[in-house]
Amino acid sequence: MMNVTLLGTSGMMPLKNRWLSSCMITCNGHSILTDCGEGTQIAVKEAGQRFKPIDTICITHFHADHISGLPGLLLTMSNEGRTEPIMMIGPAGLERVVRSLCIIAPNLPFEIRFLEYTCPLTYKSGNIIIKPFPVSHRVPCLGFSFELKRVGKFDLQKAQSNCVPIKVWGMLQKEDTVVYEGKEYTSDMVLGAPRKGIKAVYCTDTRPVKSIIENARDADLLICEGMFGNEEKLHRAKETCHMIYREAAEIAVKSNVKSLWLTHYSPSMPEPEEFLSAASDLFPAASCGFDGKTIDLQFED
Amino acid sequence: MMNVTLLGTSGMMPLKNRWLSSCMITCNGHSILTDCGEGTQIAVKEAGQRFKPIDTICITHFHADHISGLPGLLLTMSNEGRTEPIMMIGPAGLERVVRSLCIIAPNLPFEIRFLEYTCPLTYKSGNIIIKPFPVSHRVPCLGFSFELKRVGKFDLQKAQSNCVPIKVWGMLQKEDTVVYEGKEYTSDMVLGAPRKGIKAVYCTDTRPVKSIIENARDADLLICEGMFGNEEKLHRAKETCHMIYREAAEIAVKSNVKSLWLTHYSPSMPEPEEFLSAASDLFPAASCGFDGKTIDLQFED
Repeated sequence: MMNVTLLGTSGMMPLKNRWLSSCMITCNGHSILTDCGEGTQIAVKEAGQRFKPIDTICITHFHADHISGLPGLLLTMSNEGRTEPIMMIGPAGLERVVRSLCIIAPNLPFEIRFLEYTCPLTYKSGNIIIKPFPVSHRVPCLGFSFELKRVGKFDLQKAQSNCVPIKVWGMLQKEDTVVYEGKEYTSDMVLGAPRKGIKAVYCTDTRPVKSIIENARDADLLICEGMFGNEEKLHRAKETCHMIYREAAEIAVKSNVKSLWLTHYSPSMPEPEEFLSAASDLFPAASCGFDGKTIDLQFED
Repeated sequence: MMNVTLLGTSGMMPLKNRWLSSCMITCNGHSILTDCGEGTQIAVKEAGQRFKPIDTICITHFHADHISGLPGLLLTMSNEGRTEPIMMIGPAGLERVVRSLCIIAPNLPFEIRFLEYTCPLTYKSGNIIIKPFPVSHRVPCLGFSFELKRVGKFDLQKAQSNCVPIKVWGMLQKEDTVVYEGKEYTSDMVLGAPRKGIKAVYCTDTRPVKSIIENARDADLLICEGMFGNEEKLHRAKETCHMIYREAAEIAVKSNVKSLWLTHYSPSMPEPEEFLSAASDLFPAASCGFDGKTIDLQFED
């Protein structure tokens, strides 16, 4: 099971009742935070999420509304007793930007490690495989896919015909390889074909580009920016490298996702629901994200 | 008239209904902001204040809860169309810290000037004379006094006996010196003795020290930290270089201020009013500050 919670859904600036766009993904007690604008630490609390389990922080890009809350968050994580290292993933230049912001958060009791996107990469945080991918904004910007793989079903006949000792059956459902009494056994000796896992994809601050469709392919949930709902704002969306709802819905259709949550609304749009039909007419499983919106994504069957 | 508005009253971290400690002083359409922690830009909006008139930003010290909201605030000021320079006043090192934080707020359309406290100084912002003074925290920290001077009453007899032409009477009530028809006239030629002005003093993050008493002398309003209300927290206050309410009230008595507002409450104290008597028993004009608390300080008579 993978829990996905929107912490904030505002673009550009925090509003009274709408925090800056940010998302928390939690699986087996490990959390991944994506983006951390001003006020995200309060949004974390309001959403009933915890600071200490945040192992990984993904940063889409270096505009202030996506990263300015970082020093405060790191200090609060330190106040909550975090001592284990955290990994930060973001565009090239991430370490320089974070170190510069952390001039007001010196002497943190945990190490920060950096993974800068300069070529395709994946990173495993707990059981979640994180894959950043480039999108198209005014500055280098990343989308992220978060995938929880699922192994095949245990196949008794296969296990027996491969002469796998009963003692390692359980272990081979968790590990790829187990050595037992001097002999190596692999998971494919006891498991059927891998089953469909869970995939969530997050992207904001981008025009609709092919990389999103490719990376969101068959995802259970696509969280995608919809800076403007109104079709008339298309020109403005193009100018500022954002999207209108209709464009987000088109991506959802083309990438065959199960559901779409819109987010990263313009401060000029106080009621995002007002324009929902612009997305849901094209893609019925579209809905408006809101601060605190949460879902437990479950394995099929 | 000088308007003083508390934007936030929380210490350490922003709470759901309490922004980080910050204060706005406005006089004749010019504003001075003191401290800018995470979320201050939202607090500005909630308090009905405006961004564009902020000419001066005073920073008490470089702990994140007093400065982390700066890049976001500066970007919002730029979005609101500010192009005039702003002055920042703070401890030595201010420019280095602000420039470092502004890695995510590049290309601002206004100049930032810096005044670092390395020796006693005053700075005039609009009609307000700002005087920073050192207080006692774990890191270099400043308090600030804000003073609106008031000239003497116009004295007809004096003006006539000094042969001051009627045409410059009005000007000499605003300017120290006026040259008219080749002759220099000074304001003391038409004015009586200076009258009592308005003074507000702001200090947080300090133990009770003599510099506060000296600088708050006879102020109309002292805004002073009261991290803890409970007398039992004295040890903790000493340890962390903060104050309990009773200590703030003692400063108010010794400095002969007219009124005291407590602020910068510990997150462990959700109901600051609960302990108010610890201050008001000693100094009856003590009250608890709260987000949005505001007063128009007027000249006497």
